Amino acid sequence: MWQLYQFPLCPFSRKVRLLLGEKGIGYDLVRESPWERRDEFLDMNPAGRTPVMVEAAKGLTLIDSWAICEYFEETVEQAPMINGTSVNRAEIRRLVAWFDEQFHADVVAPLMHERMKKRLIDRASPDARVLRDAMKLAVNHLDYVDYLLDHRNWLGGATMSLADLTAAAHISVADYLGGIDWRGHAQTQRWYAALKSRPSFRPLLSERMEVITPPPHYDKVDF
Amino acid sequence: MWQLYQFPLCPFSRKVRLLLGEKGIGYDLVRESPWERRDEFLDMNPAGRTPVMVEAAKGLTLIDSWAICEYFEETVEQAPMINGTSVNRAEIRRLVAWFDEQFHADVVAPLMHERMKKRLIDRASPDARVLRDAMKLAVNHLDYVDYLLDHRNWLGGATMSLADLTAAAHISVADYLGGIDWRGHAQTQRWYAALKSRPSFRPLLSERMEVITPPPHYDKVDF
Ligand SMILES: N[C@@H](CCC(=O)N[C@@H](CS)C(=O)NCC(=O)O)C(=O)O
Ligand SMILES: N[C@@H](CCC(=O)N[C@@H](CS)C(=O)NCC(=O)O)C(=O)O
Repeated sequence: MWQLYQFPLCPFSRKVRLLLGEKGIGYDLVRESPWERRDEFLDMNPAGRTPVMVEAAKGLTLIDSWAICEYFEETVEQAPMINGTSVNRAEIRRLVAWFDEQFHADVVAPLMHERMKKRLIDRASPDARVLRDAMKLAVNHLDYVDYLLDHRNWLGGATMSLADLTAAAHISVADYLGGIDWRGHAQTQRWYAALKSRPSFRPLLSERMEVITPPPHYDKVDF
Repeated sequence: MWQLYQFPLCPFSRKVRLLLGEKGIGYDLVRESPWERRDEFLDMNPAGRTPVMVEAAKGLTLIDSWAICEYFEETVEQAPMINGTSVNRAEIRRLVAWFDEQFHADVVAPLMHERMKKRLIDRASPDARVLRDAMKLAVNHLDYVDYLLDHRNWLGGATMSLADLTAAAHISVADYLGGIDWRGHAQTQRWYAALKSRPSFRPLLSERMEVITPPPHYDKVDF
């Protein structure tokens, strides 16, 4: 059985969980708080980051959400999520990279720092200006998602793909932390409601990170 | 013919160029300075980042070095660079991600900011403390490369792979900017000398970024 080292608000682990869920791959969750820099975890992954996946019986350790997703995409045929022609696949990967870097750096990372890490580690209050800037950038980025959905059924093309799962992973963490203003984003909201209702998404939405409570709409499919 | 939008010190473009070189794929270079945020470039890539590859005759635009490398790996069989079993491939991708994120953030990005962007854009002097920190982290990271090369012929395993090309791309930019102290890294130095002597690497080493001169050893295979 695979074990996934993660914590409830890690967007990269959420991406992996959505993929595993869609593909029907079973796994156990192992709680890991990378900011604690546990020795045993650093021995497993010198970069000290979640997600890490371990299959002890087979002696396998997989590190980094990109490497993990490509691994399961290659080894499990069911529910292909990097699909289509090579050009389609390049477009899916472009969007995955864009959410993992740009959306993460502009929106998710500052929200996590202000609303989660400061609370858990320094017991300090969030900086209102940083939160405001992150929420403003979230609006711009959701405008781009709206634009994509004006032209396509799903973010990466005609079918659901790893681009949608990655986007939903990051957006869901930002939403948990109160960083998403859904007004004016009807397109993206409809797309996100469809993802929220998938069996792969339900377990994530019901989990809570200690100390931090999400807004009431967070886990509602109808929001 | 493919066109590659890049500038001489972009490590992600260097990674793509090394892959194209190894695979024998021809391309033209188009100089792009992403910090100028040119409208035509932003129309092509809303993220405003290099590298971007365009094949105008076929109407193709590829964005993001990960997506670009996977595309050519899928479409051109020659000189496979994400090779072996799925587990080998996951290890190669882990290392690519590690250099693109950790080595880039700790070493390459601060060096580029202090030694290139400040000079070109703000005409300001570099901050000696930031440079010192980046060079100290470079030493730690090269220790890890030494450790990998104690156990393997190449970074990702028994054969040369995208992990080596990615590492060489980032290290070469850091070296150009005077950020690498080669003393005490004999393993890594030997591995890097072998890469430097490859035909795919020669054109990169002979190019110069205006205003900034590399140290004398930079383009020497014997250094
Ligand atoms: N490229 C990595 C990024 C993983 C990552 O940044 N994880 C965060 C948690 S969401 C982490 O472990 N940060 C701890 C640290 O950077 O020390 C991936 O896709 O897996
Ligand atoms: N994930 C991207 C990163 C590309 C990237 O960060 N490129 C830098 C130049 S080395 C850039 O264009 N930066 C401009 C900016 O961030 O505005 C890739 O792998 O292609």
